[in-house]
Amino acid sequence: MSSKVDAKTQRRQKFEDVFPVLRDELLAYLTKENMPQDAVEWYKRNLDYNVPGGKLNRGMSVVDSVAILKGGSLTDDEYFRAALLGWCVELLQAFFLVSDDMMDQSVTRRGQPCWFRIEHVNYIAINDSFMLEGAIYHLLKSHFRSEPYYVDLLELFHETTFQTELGQLIDLITAPEDHVDLSKFSLKKHSLIVIYKTAYYSFYLPVALAMHMCGIPHSTTNDPYVLAQSILVPLGEYFQVQDDFLDFAGTPEQIGKIGTDIIDNKCSWCINTALALATPAQRAVLDENYGRKDAACEARIKTLYEELRIRERYAEYEEKAYTRIIGLIQTIPETPIAPAGQAVLRREVFKAFLDKIYKRQK
Amino acid sequence: MSSKVDAKTQRRQKFEDVFPVLRDELLAYLTKENMPQDAVEWYKRNLDYNVPGGKLNRGMSVVDSVAILKGGSLTDDEYFRAALLGWCVELLQAFFLVSDDMMDQSVTRRGQPCWFRIEHVNYIAINDSFMLEGAIYHLLKSHFRSEPYYVDLLELFHETTFQTELGQLIDLITAPEDHVDLSKFSLKKHSLIVIYKTAYYSFYLPVALAMHMCGIPHSTTNDPYVLAQSILVPLGEYFQVQDDFLDFAGTPEQIGKIGTDIIDNKCSWCINTALALATPAQRAVLDENYGRKDAACEARIKTLYEELRIRERYAEYEEKAYTRIIGLIQTIPETPIAPAGQAVLRREVFKAFLDKIYKRQK
Repeated sequence: MSSKVDAKTQRRQKFEDVFPVLRDELLAYLTKENMPQDAVEWYKRNLDYNVPGGKLNRGMSVVDSVAILKGGSLTDDEYFRAALLGWCVELLQAFFLVSDDMMDQSVTRRGQPCWFRIEHVNYIAINDSFMLEGAIYHLLKSHFRSEPYYVDLLELFHETTFQTELGQLIDLITAPEDHVDLSKFSLKKHSLIVIYKTAYYSFYLPVALAMHMCGIPHSTTNDPYVLAQSILVPLGEYFQVQDDFLDFAGTPEQIGKIGTDIIDNKCSWCINTALALATPAQRAVLDENYGRKDAACEARIKTLYEELRIRERYAEYEEKAYTRIIGLIQTIPETPIAPAGQAVLRREVFKAFLDKIYKRQK
Repeated sequence: MSSKVDAKTQRRQKFEDVFPVLRDELLAYLTKENMPQDAVEWYKRNLDYNVPGGKLNRGMSVVDSVAILKGGSLTDDEYFRAALLGWCVELLQAFFLVSDDMMDQSVTRRGQPCWFRIEHVNYIAINDSFMLEGAIYHLLKSHFRSEPYYVDLLELFHETTFQTELGQLIDLITAPEDHVDLSKFSLKKHSLIVIYKTAYYSFYLPVALAMHMCGIPHSTTNDPYVLAQSILVPLGEYFQVQDDFLDFAGTPEQIGKIGTDIIDNKCSWCINTALALATPAQRAVLDENYGRKDAACEARIKTLYEELRIRERYAEYEEKAYTRIIGLIQTIPETPIAPAGQAVLRREVFKAFLDKIYKRQK
């Protein structure tokens, strides 16, 4: 057991060690552009506070995917470049989280105050979030400019960013925190929100980046990127449904926070499933109690979730999702690595994701 | 005279007519991605409210520059593509203005309430600003993807965006509205802020886009883009100094608004010039009265500006800036248009800008 823990810690440590190198490169650019010292220090604090403190699953999955696609361990240079792409995903996520926290007026993130709540930051957090996004293109230019797939990387980030913003827009207008209207909710709407807001950037983006780095080309017939997306989007949807379920059913010890989806009027898988199953009388209870800043209302919703057997429904959902995704993975042809070293898509990339997600409790 | 007015109106009308085409293309993308109708309508309102209502000088200057560099009038297709690049500059500006208005907690913009003050918008304006930026890369991809200079366009937008964000950062930490500290101000700091926050995106970006569209290549020796930047950055700085001066000296009839730089603690050319000239006693008056939400304090600053002869200082500055920029323009070799139709940089591009700015009253 302890060697497994050690390996996990080492894997994370190795990835984390790349971050200061990239941060210092960004700061050196500011210095070169004659920015005043207080601006350089501000950007350093922005980067250090908002980028490295999360689970880093998205970023590390780029490195893992590159290793699988290359069929072995990476040279130091390959590792660094894969990790750089991984940190670009983490930068993109930091851009979204800093701004989402402002839009939601959240209080804490990753166990510390949200960035905009730090003294003297306030609305400057908006521009700070832009500068987290801007870092991505600076790093890509300085390290990937001469690659034939450079423009693919840029377009992939552009497109994924826009898709995530679309997801955030639908979410914001479907479930504003201060106005409950459950008639706007549906499992179909939920699916659309989670695919756009989470699945593309958290699941498809890391794998597509790895595929580009390994030289897998786009193709007009049976494009491997389309194939990867057709698996990773359902996988991301499953992940978010699970996340929504754990917000309701997970203990604080498991999930490391107290779930607030019911109080916050979130368009969660749980409420949408409840809406699909509710009798008119139950629907009235949902309308009257969902999204209220009141512990008794929240408790009534939770009781109704139990009555509607949301836990069983989730177990059924999870089994079906798992089986479906396994089936999708098996559509990938099992080719040996081509002798010329030409990387091809491999089932293990997707299995690695699925294994980390299936029946997770946190 | 009336035919001159007509020509100006027509020029603007022709440019404006391109906007709905681009907007509808963006909305069609959302529809194709199965976005719900209310999200498509929201994006339409965001685009219509925030993009077309300004002076459009930045956008139209792309079209004008392309026409000068091509040495004649444009075909319909050339016009459309130049106007598209111009609208991308306007989209970038809309992205900045929507978010700047939130950061500054402004009340009005272009004679209407700031977007975030519209009912039901509020913090959604942050994501809306992102989606204005996102539109740029969608439009560039769908119209310029096959051009050899496509990646140059992308990098130009990335770099200019980052520079503008840097300028905004220095401005925000140098001159926060709620904390006056004139020791952070200086003419050097002012120059840095206006170059990064305004000059790159308002002056260099439109011309560099036009140069790319006309096929002017980068060069390792005497890069025409470096030459263009060396003229357009001082031109942009001059423009902003003038803007700062007009905020103090222009009448509301001239500038279409009431200047609030003194009350808002803005790091303006006027205060920085005053700081450079003030005796210790005058400096104390500046420290005590600048950036206060009080008409009497503002009046005291204005009186001091008059005592320090800021108007004369500005007239001197303007003559020097004009002469310097004319000198820079004359360093461009006067080459006839090459027989192969290869576009080269031409003095007229810069003269067109300078003529619009020199001694303007609004």
